[in-house]
Amino acid sequence: MNAIKIGLLGLGNIGTGTYKTLEMNRKQIEANTGLSIEIVKILEKDVGRKRDISVSHDQFTQNPDDILLDPSIDIVIELLGGIEPASGFMLKALENKKHVVTANKAAVAANFDDFMDAAKRNHVMFRYEASVGGGIPILNALTTALLANKFEEILGIVNGTTNYILTQMTEYGLDYADVLKVAQEKGFAEADPTADVEGIDVANKLSILISLVFGIRVTTNEIPTEGITKISKDDIALADKFGYKIKLLATAKKVGDQLEAHVQPAFVPKDHPLAAVSNEFNAIFVTGNAVDDLMFYGKGAGPLPTGSAVMGDVIEISRAIAKNAAFDHHTESKAVKMLRYVGEGQNKYYVNMMVKDVPGVLGGISTTFGAFGIGVDSVLQLSKDVNTNREVPLIFILHEVTRARLDEALDKIGSSKFASEIKSIIRVM
Amino acid sequence: MNAIKIGLLGLGNIGTGTYKTLEMNRKQIEANTGLSIEIVKILEKDVGRKRDISVSHDQFTQNPDDILLDPSIDIVIELLGGIEPASGFMLKALENKKHVVTANKAAVAANFDDFMDAAKRNHVMFRYEASVGGGIPILNALTTALLANKFEEILGIVNGTTNYILTQMTEYGLDYADVLKVAQEKGFAEADPTADVEGIDVANKLSILISLVFGIRVTTNEIPTEGITKISKDDIALADKFGYKIKLLATAKKVGDQLEAHVQPAFVPKDHPLAAVSNEFNAIFVTGNAVDDLMFYGKGAGPLPTGSAVMGDVIEISRAIAKNAAFDHHTESKAVKMLRYVGEGQNKYYVNMMVKDVPGVLGGISTTFGAFGIGVDSVLQLSKDVNTNREVPLIFILHEVTRARLDEALDKIGSSKFASEIKSIIRVM
Repeated sequence: MNAIKIGLLGLGNIGTGTYKTLEMNRKQIEANTGLSIEIVKILEKDVGRKRDISVSHDQFTQNPDDILLDPSIDIVIELLGGIEPASGFMLKALENKKHVVTANKAAVAANFDDFMDAAKRNHVMFRYEASVGGGIPILNALTTALLANKFEEILGIVNGTTNYILTQMTEYGLDYADVLKVAQEKGFAEADPTADVEGIDVANKLSILISLVFGIRVTTNEIPTEGITKISKDDIALADKFGYKIKLLATAKKVGDQLEAHVQPAFVPKDHPLAAVSNEFNAIFVTGNAVDDLMFYGKGAGPLPTGSAVMGDVIEISRAIAKNAAFDHHTESKAVKMLRYVGEGQNKYYVNMMVKDVPGVLGGISTTFGAFGIGVDSVLQLSKDVNTNREVPLIFILHEVTRARLDEALDKIGSSKFASEIKSIIRVM
Repeated sequence: MNAIKIGLLGLGNIGTGTYKTLEMNRKQIEANTGLSIEIVKILEKDVGRKRDISVSHDQFTQNPDDILLDPSIDIVIELLGGIEPASGFMLKALENKKHVVTANKAAVAANFDDFMDAAKRNHVMFRYEASVGGGIPILNALTTALLANKFEEILGIVNGTTNYILTQMTEYGLDYADVLKVAQEKGFAEADPTADVEGIDVANKLSILISLVFGIRVTTNEIPTEGITKISKDDIALADKFGYKIKLLATAKKVGDQLEAHVQPAFVPKDHPLAAVSNEFNAIFVTGNAVDDLMFYGKGAGPLPTGSAVMGDVIEISRAIAKNAAFDHHTESKAVKMLRYVGEGQNKYYVNMMVKDVPGVLGGISTTFGAFGIGVDSVLQLSKDVNTNREVPLIFILHEVTRARLDEALDKIGSSKFASEIKSIIRVM
């Protein structure tokens, strides 16, 4: 039996889950692949921590070179997280002709081209299934079984923390801050939740998906990104009235030879499959010109689901090693016609504003929208708030418009005699 | 550029969709794989039919051996449908060292072992992604990215015709016969709908999934199979009251070292992701011991989605040919511990019966269930039917029991003084 030797960088939660996935399914993997896969060295400072796996102390090292330079190691799994030193370690492993598997979306999004170049130059594989959608095998599908498609659009709910918060806000009518607090207590959100709730984690994943599916590099910073911190329980209740749920969406969409992309909370129609994706679950919805609509749904995080994706990559590489095959580098798609990245594009919007309860207000505001070429899809005027007495909420769903144009119109409306406050602006899918 | 030559058996709807998928995405496929893939010969009698593709008359042949024995052909795509002559053609192609790709679930389910043996013996690949779930790349995922899992359960909505009928019955409160008629007029159901509505098509697909995921052969005939023809609009309305939707489910479930499998309409809880799969869409829900719950959703039929799956298989084989790699035969899973197939197993059930409107009826029937060791989960007694005047519907949701035991209890109840008719028995998920 072929023996494949692995060096593991990081034995935290995800590292432990990956180790455990291999341990509990070792016989199954050997039976299915004819391969013996063994984690022989682990870079980890916290040697003493109690872990639910049969790892022995002499597997540990504190020196990354014990793994990166060891000629007996075939594959390096990187589960340290963060851009550095993880990226440097991975590049060094690739330069030393080791295949690399990672779950690190920040590092992959930041250094995608460098990893690809180093892998090709050194005739080894670089795989990162776990970096997008956790256990969901989306990247594998996009680069193998779905290769006979041109993709039109990708929509993703790819952050479990924010989807959990939005689901709880929706189900229990709670405010963001209250749910965040509970989520932190339960361990569903981190003490510093910024990367999740501000959409940065989602933008990293979207950058990776765009590289893979549309064959152009759009860095995380280039993607217009908005998190969920401004979403109120009122927005969620109003979305419900109009027939929508609010989800934090990663969107990439081909419009002619342009590519639009953004990370934003969005009104998702209740009958869309993404609307049914609740709590910590993730889903990626893609539309191909042959396969049509396709959705992949599953656990987007967690030690074992992530371990499943990491070990899936390890098994694929191991099979290629065993077959002595040339290694696949078709892990990014080459668009035949180069797309031009344009950022946000045109979208439908929900706008919730407080207006004076005076005659002519609806007409005045609608006329202003009209003057800016913005069509109104639907309007809801709520009854007077007994506390303020002189102001009422007025809610619009607007037809497609650029955000810049919408902001111009809202500036004009805000400085008119009718509106006192623009409370929220949320994209409508 | 490597040129891969294809022989195509059958240019009906699916054959045309496959041809078109290749035609419209040829440049993309060449850019992504570095391969030129060409359909050079087509077995098809209907040469004159108007098709929306650029096929030329000299590509056609009426002699299968022109394809099966042509040494220049690398891959044979079989899209004739039906067990024979398709199976004979595929075996002949394999024996002549040609790789084979098919969408034919009936043939694959009937002759799985023969195809696998012939492929291994001749060092070629046999792939059949399109045979289960149309465009959904479930088989590829199960045999590659998810290989680091032991699977506990598969649940599938894998027939678009029956899911369309059940969805329309649910949304418009219509009876089965009325919806079937409309579905036939619209081309969503065939003139002879037997294979679809009696669950045979689903059982073929389940047999294939079981071979792949659990590594044992259970033939289509060995799977307890019930279609949707007895489902009434009353059943659907009652399911709704209890919080369920009715779906035709393919189920395979590991219970210790036993495997249960069946094809039956089932009450699916409304908050389960499968409940949101509507109309012609398909979905396969799998639970792995590492990846947890995972669902794949998409178009389960249609020329282009099926073409996407067929061409995905063709591309994977072509890449392996180009790499001159040993061919993968890990397309079926080898269970480490052999499972024992037991058929139906224990399930929860919904039972709808007409009972006499006399004192003691609920107590009497509940006591009988109790005597057979059957627990009652919930009960609904509807008000008197004004037409019959002396009978009322009584609906039970029962705890887990074998169907045989349930039937014994219902025989006893049917012959008692209380019940006049058992109207329906449907499994509850």
